Amino acid sequence: MTVSMHSASAPIFARMLGNLNTWLDKAQAHAEVKKFDSANYLALRLAPDMLPFVSQVRIASDIARLAMAKLGDAEYPRYADDETTLEGLAERVRKTVAFMQSIDAARVDGSEAREIVLPQRTGDPLHFTGESFLQRWALPNVFFHTTMTYALLRHAGVELGKADYLGGP
Amino acid sequence: MTVSMHSASAPIFARMLGNLNTWLDKAQAHAEVKKFDSANYLALRLAPDMLPFVSQVRIASDIARLAMAKLGDAEYPRYADDETTLEGLAERVRKTVAFMQSIDAARVDGSEAREIVLPQRTGDPLHFTGESFLQRWALPNVFFHTTMTYALLRHAGVELGKADYLGGP
Repeated sequence: MTVSMHSASAPIFARMLGNLNTWLDKAQAHAEVKKFDSANYLALRLAPDMLPFVSQVRIASDIARLAMAKLGDAEYPRYADDETTLEGLAERVRKTVAFMQSIDAARVDGSEAREIVLPQRTGDPLHFTGESFLQRWALPNVFFHTTMTYALLRHAGVELGKADYLGGP
Repeated sequence: MTVSMHSASAPIFARMLGNLNTWLDKAQAHAEVKKFDSANYLALRLAPDMLPFVSQVRIASDIARLAMAKLGDAEYPRYADDETTLEGLAERVRKTVAFMQSIDAARVDGSEAREIVLPQRTGDPLHFTGESFLQRWALPNVFFHTTMTYALLRHAGVELGKADYLGGP
């Protein structure tokens, strides 16, 4: 037995993005208790030369969507980067999960040897097989941006723990 | 075609842990330029109720080792938590990668349906299949602790970028 490309990608991304939305809920509740505008989270950065919170959430969702579009040979749906609230970000994440669920597992399975080409803003495009794309680019990137979102909320005082990060059984 | 349990686990963990050691090298160089004791990193925390840097590195390596021991049906090698330097942590990571490489891929392949039981410090043990253990527990946990290590170093001013996080081609 082995693992299918779909089971090694979409459910992991959907789970982490679903978990992320529960962190946003707790961040909203924290802001209400402390009586500050929850939009204040969006500009937080761990370092002045890192992307802010709003970008971490956007990119986490964008990479999950892009990865499933590439692996499922579907068109990548671009979203405007115009959210100004936690709820707007949560909606982007929900739309991303719905997009991923719209891609049939059968379209993704068998993609492990397919060539995946990823254009870069500068320089040559990156070339992968489906498997190396998932394992060296998509998985690390989705975990990077979801975990950075979590780190920013923890640093901001939101009460989150490992169980929130990992999600339910 | 499909993905094997070994290719979906050991190379991803080894790659992230190898990347982590390059972050430690840059952290050491940063400390030398700034003339502070690099052991100062070990106590850094993003929040006072989060584990410190030293624990993030230890646990990233421990979970990768535990995961491959479980999936490869091998004994989990426990390491003493006694590192007091970056170099000590780098050595723990190198030993972990060597342990993972010592486990034959054939022992891991076919583990997707095997029952994996994970005792908990308090409460009932967690039950997984090999596949759900990898995808819901091992991968997220290794990425959590490696990314938290990266976040702490970025927050501390070490010059790292996404290319350092993802590693070479």
